[in-house]
Amino acid sequence: MSENPTGADNQQERLSADWVVGFVDGEGCFFVGINRQPSMKIGWQVLPEFRVVQHQKDVAILEQLQEFFGFGQITTNHGDRKELRIRGLKQLLEVVAFFRAHPLRTVKRSSFDCFAQVIDMMEDGDHLTEKGLERVRQLASRMNRGAQNPQRPYARYPVSSTG
Amino acid sequence: MSENPTGADNQQERLSADWVVGFVDGEGCFFVGINRQPSMKIGWQVLPEFRVVQHQKDVAILEQLQEFFGFGQITTNHGDRKELRIRGLKQLLEVVAFFRAHPLRTVKRSSFDCFAQVIDMMEDGDHLTEKGLERVRQLASRMNRGAQNPQRPYARYPVSSTG
Repeated sequence: MSENPTGADNQQERLSADWVVGFVDGEGCFFVGINRQPSMKIGWQVLPEFRVVQHQKDVAILEQLQEFFGFGQITTNHGDRKELRIRGLKQLLEVVAFFRAHPLRTVKRSSFDCFAQVIDMMEDGDHLTEKGLERVRQLASRMNRGAQNPQRPYARYPVSSTG
Repeated sequence: MSENPTGADNQQERLSADWVVGFVDGEGCFFVGINRQPSMKIGWQVLPEFRVVQHQKDVAILEQLQEFFGFGQITTNHGDRKELRIRGLKQLLEVVAFFRAHPLRTVKRSSFDCFAQVIDMMEDGDHLTEKGLERVRQLASRMNRGAQNPQRPYARYPVSSTG
C-alpha cells in the first residue's frame, strides 16, 4: 500500500493514508456475510467484504482507491452506482492492518473492530468450528447497526465464486 | 485551522487536513441558496453554506470538525441526523482557502469550485448587482448535480437570521 504523509504536496498523484481513512469513515463499509454452503463441512461459509460505493461519475476515485490498496474489484453496485469490493483473506488481512495503523475516527470504527476480529479468526481457521462460527455470527450482528450504513441483508449477499 | 501531516501519530487528538478532505469528499456539501428578500435592494439574498450531515451517533465527529475549522454550528438536520453548518462570508472565506490548499479528490471538487467563485464574488459585493446575481444563479445551478449529493431545494433553505 502506498502512503503519502505530506498530503497536500502530492495530491494529484496518489491518495494519502489520511485521506483514505477520512473517505472510508464516510463512505466505506465493512461487512461479513454468512451463507449456507452445503459443500462445506460446517455447512456455512463466512464471506467478509470491504467495499466503497460511489455514483458512477466518481468511478475514478474507486480506481485510485484500488491503486492505493493494490487490489480490489470495481463492479456495478446498483443502477448508476459502482463499488470497489475487496474480498479474500489475504487481501483483507492487509486492509485490516492498514486500518489498525490508521484508525477510523467515526463510530464506523466499532464495525471495523468486529470485522477485524472475524478476519483474525479466519486466519486461524476458527470460523470452521461450531464455536467459532457462533462467535462470527455475534460479531457480524454487531456491525453496521443504525441508519448510517444500511447493509444488504445476508440473504442478498451473492454466493462467492470461491465457495 | 489545525494540520497534522503525520496523521497516524496523533490521531486521537486532532483531525488531520487530509482526513478532513477525505471525509468531506464523502460527506460534505457545498450549497448556495438564493432566497427572496424584499428588504434588500436587489430583492434576493445569496446564502452560501457548507455542511456535513451525520447520524446523531456520530455527533462527536461533527464536534471535531467544528474544532478543526474553529467555527460552525451543530444543529439537528432531520430526524436522527445532525449537521455541522458553516455560514457567514468571513468563515466561508476560510473554508474556501482550506479546500484550495487541500483540494478535494472526487467530483465534489467541481461543486466546490462553483461555491468558491460565489464566495469570491460576495467578497467583492458582486452578488449585489443584477449581473452578478445572474452569475451566482448560474454557478449555483451547476453545483451538486446528480444523485450523489441530493440537496434541499432552495425553497426549503431557511431564511437566514443575518438577512
